[in-house]
Amino acid sequence: MTDESNGTGVSRRGFLTRVGATGGAGAMFATMGALGLAPSAEAATRTPFQPPRASDFRLRGRGAAKVAVLGAGVAGLAAAYELGKAGYDVTILEAQDRVGGRNRTLRGGDRLTEMGGATQEVKFGKGTYMNAGPARIAQWMTTMDYCRELGVPLEVFTNSNADAYIFNESAGMTAPVRWRTAKADVYGYISELLAKATDQGALDQRLTGTDKERLLSFLSGFGAIGSKANGFAYRGTDGRRGYSVNPGAADTAGTVLGPVPSLTDVFASGVGRNFSFEFGYSQAMLMFQPVGGMDAIPRALAKAVGSGKIRTGCKVTKITNQSGGVEIEYEREGRTRKLAADYCIATLPPQILAKIPHNLGAGVQAALGTPVPNSTGKIGLEYRGRWWEDEERIYGGITNTDLDLSTIWYPSHDFHAERGLVVGYYNFGANADAYARMTHADRLRRALDQGAKIHGDRYRRNLASSASIAWIRQPHIEGGWISWPSRGAEYTLLNQAQGHVYFSGDWLSYEIAWQHGSFESARKVVTELHQRVLQS
Amino acid sequence: MTDESNGTGVSRRGFLTRVGATGGAGAMFATMGALGLAPSAEAATRTPFQPPRASDFRLRGRGAAKVAVLGAGVAGLAAAYELGKAGYDVTILEAQDRVGGRNRTLRGGDRLTEMGGATQEVKFGKGTYMNAGPARIAQWMTTMDYCRELGVPLEVFTNSNADAYIFNESAGMTAPVRWRTAKADVYGYISELLAKATDQGALDQRLTGTDKERLLSFLSGFGAIGSKANGFAYRGTDGRRGYSVNPGAADTAGTVLGPVPSLTDVFASGVGRNFSFEFGYSQAMLMFQPVGGMDAIPRALAKAVGSGKIRTGCKVTKITNQSGGVEIEYEREGRTRKLAADYCIATLPPQILAKIPHNLGAGVQAALGTPVPNSTGKIGLEYRGRWWEDEERIYGGITNTDLDLSTIWYPSHDFHAERGLVVGYYNFGANADAYARMTHADRLRRALDQGAKIHGDRYRRNLASSASIAWIRQPHIEGGWISWPSRGAEYTLLNQAQGHVYFSGDWLSYEIAWQHGSFESARKVVTELHQRVLQS
Repeated sequence: MTDESNGTGVSRRGFLTRVGATGGAGAMFATMGALGLAPSAEAATRTPFQPPRASDFRLRGRGAAKVAVLGAGVAGLAAAYELGKAGYDVTILEAQDRVGGRNRTLRGGDRLTEMGGATQEVKFGKGTYMNAGPARIAQWMTTMDYCRELGVPLEVFTNSNADAYIFNESAGMTAPVRWRTAKADVYGYISELLAKATDQGALDQRLTGTDKERLLSFLSGFGAIGSKANGFAYRGTDGRRGYSVNPGAADTAGTVLGPVPSLTDVFASGVGRNFSFEFGYSQAMLMFQPVGGMDAIPRALAKAVGSGKIRTGCKVTKITNQSGGVEIEYEREGRTRKLAADYCIATLPPQILAKIPHNLGAGVQAALGTPVPNSTGKIGLEYRGRWWEDEERIYGGITNTDLDLSTIWYPSHDFHAERGLVVGYYNFGANADAYARMTHADRLRRALDQGAKIHGDRYRRNLASSASIAWIRQPHIEGGWISWPSRGAEYTLLNQAQGHVYFSGDWLSYEIAWQHGSFESARKVVTELHQRVLQS
Repeated sequence: MTDESNGTGVSRRGFLTRVGATGGAGAMFATMGALGLAPSAEAATRTPFQPPRASDFRLRGRGAAKVAVLGAGVAGLAAAYELGKAGYDVTILEAQDRVGGRNRTLRGGDRLTEMGGATQEVKFGKGTYMNAGPARIAQWMTTMDYCRELGVPLEVFTNSNADAYIFNESAGMTAPVRWRTAKADVYGYISELLAKATDQGALDQRLTGTDKERLLSFLSGFGAIGSKANGFAYRGTDGRRGYSVNPGAADTAGTVLGPVPSLTDVFASGVGRNFSFEFGYSQAMLMFQPVGGMDAIPRALAKAVGSGKIRTGCKVTKITNQSGGVEIEYEREGRTRKLAADYCIATLPPQILAKIPHNLGAGVQAALGTPVPNSTGKIGLEYRGRWWEDEERIYGGITNTDLDLSTIWYPSHDFHAERGLVVGYYNFGANADAYARMTHADRLRRALDQGAKIHGDRYRRNLASSASIAWIRQPHIEGGWISWPSRGAEYTLLNQAQGHVYFSGDWLSYEIAWQHGSFESARKVVTELHQRVLQS
């Protein structure tokens, strides 16, 4: 958080803190509004971005430059798209036979090849797909702006669902608990505890009498707890736990799900472990996905760039910075070719770039070797029928588990359709590595065995097809995303132009593993490159 | 909650309570699973319903009866639809010129007439609509089953959005706060307080040492609070508050929204007041809506019933129970007509039924007069442009306020479209009554004045059209829903057949104001009527 001076030597935050301390109820909020600091409509400032325009050159009597973009992932496509608005002569070199990079949507007919030689033929039925890479977009993200600008239709991505499950086998659970039930119990017990402590005066050093009244009033509703006369006890009789018999007509009042586990058992079960996930700035609902598959974004970008400017099947083998430009060597159909350009924007993952010979120096090479690739994987389970909806009343959302599956995802679209695809695992780190080492058949077998602990035998029935991805084994990518041990000198170095070479990608942003990071990084590099061309 | 005996004189709940007390961590959950009591896939038992079948008669040598259904709302249509499956000769009498009752979707070209004579011509553009009545469906509700059975496509209804606002003017707020920010602050401070109290031993009578460790670990993540060394203090530095400058590329780490209000100010602002709304069994996300408008449900029902069986423009004027059946008197185009039937299912609101002469006795009449109609209203504001998305980054969801608007709803569909409709108020009770007394022009003026306190001047710009509904003033309906002072003898009486007359509707269920209640009530009456016919 930054402090700003108000021009009188008093920091704005300092001023507000004093107002808060002396102004009484509401004073802080009122003042915040007056200063335009409150989280109002305007407050969430977006990075201003001005796309290059052809007119920029006309005014200055300069011409657009020739730019080689390495990689047709989101960063590369976005950079080419933005430069194209000003008439830059852009060529994208992409090693794969498709655009999108990690933004990949698997559909029937796709071939999925892994390093090591294994190949899956994806056999999903018509209309079934799995977003193998990015699968969700937060409202605040720049990705939303590109969807608007490119006309990519959006629908809600169901990142949280009160009726999805939590299942922690290691805590001794033998049946899953719905998120709503877990929340009712955890919020109930913490409300009971805090109400007791507050009422007994344990927090009198921190709370005024008015604070206490307001807090107790809040806890009463938040936890659905008893009155003071009842010891503020949480009894779980509120319907928010869920019902074993739903409320219905006439005398069917409904039967609240029971029995309510003890406070000790609730905390021992660890069901609260994932509650804060949905508070995250990037994960809080509402979230969104393009209708029909996430690859609508790279496809729309590629269309806007123009297919003539994208060369697929071109593996970069050498990057040479020169006094007046840059030369890229690449292989296509077994032959080495060269591309000369004024500038290069290299958007490949750092672990791939680190393997490509270049003349940018040992510092750049060391920096490219600094980020650590992360393992992640998914399996798509296509079913003939949507038992999660019909039999378990789960319409979208995510089940969390301490099994090596980590998460199970239910589809956010085509509710009540004849078929549907469940993501049987979306896992990370050691769990993802373990699945990456298996054949697809073994991944499937294990995913079904584990998932059946949550969903029972129906999890094995009516399976139509499946496909799995292990990002660490994807050629030309070799990882889900990267982590910086720290954003130190290496991060800073690669965020600066090295001669005529710019680096770009989510790995050079503060939103790693999000398309937002790729878009923002592309915009930053495009802005810098364009400024340089205008001033050269 | 009901207790069940396990056949040994020990109640199941009693047994489980003892296991929980003595079995250690996980024992309760494990036992719950083994007994099939945990909130597992199967536990949320749905009311079993067997639709009448033509074969039921063949087996018993009996024929279907003739049934007059009063009202083509959801209960009436569902009853007719289910009876139709067995070949009952059903006639629906509906006072209005349309089916659906309170399930009404307003579109351009509709006329909206109020008691008192005011008429609005709805001028929404093509594709714009407002669900004037029910607008959301929970996953567990029977309404979902009818959508599946009737082929009504569903999409997510955005009942909660971390980026929508909370605005409590009476607490002195002069700018709205996003839900995510309010949650971060409230959860942060309650976590700080409970951690302090726990650590200081204030709750040692209730918590074991292990409980305390687990609770502190939970609170650390739940509230994003400091360590013990830092007094467990909530500082709001976590990104979950939101950002004034979003995280972006290179050195744009993002600026967390600040300053953080004090604990006193947070509780004084009342932002936590509505948090428990989304824990409700009927309101927790995920929720759903039919694509294109809620009236897809009555339209699909009416189509399945057959238009020949639905007589619109027929106002019931008398209900006469007879020894062998029932006679309904009604007015159509100024003339009185009669319909004879074996049975009647009366699904009109009780406040309407109470005005219709009948021979069912003083007890029935008193019972019909017992429920209290509730006032509720909505205004639809159609804009040329979607400023809430483009300028405020709010893609769906609901803003809560203590202004007389109560709630403002942003659309759940057609994101990024050229136009969109905001529900400028959805309010209740005295607030709804106040708006009901105004002309539409005055409602609009006030709704804009109030809403501009939250959204600023953009709330007044680019308004294309508007329409408002005051349910208390809707002819033949006269209320949003009813409340029972208590579900006493009157409720019981009307849930029993009175001669050949059955009553049905959400008002005779435990889910008043929900279509689920109407469906469940219709199923209950259809089941009873069919049993009676089979046994007669």
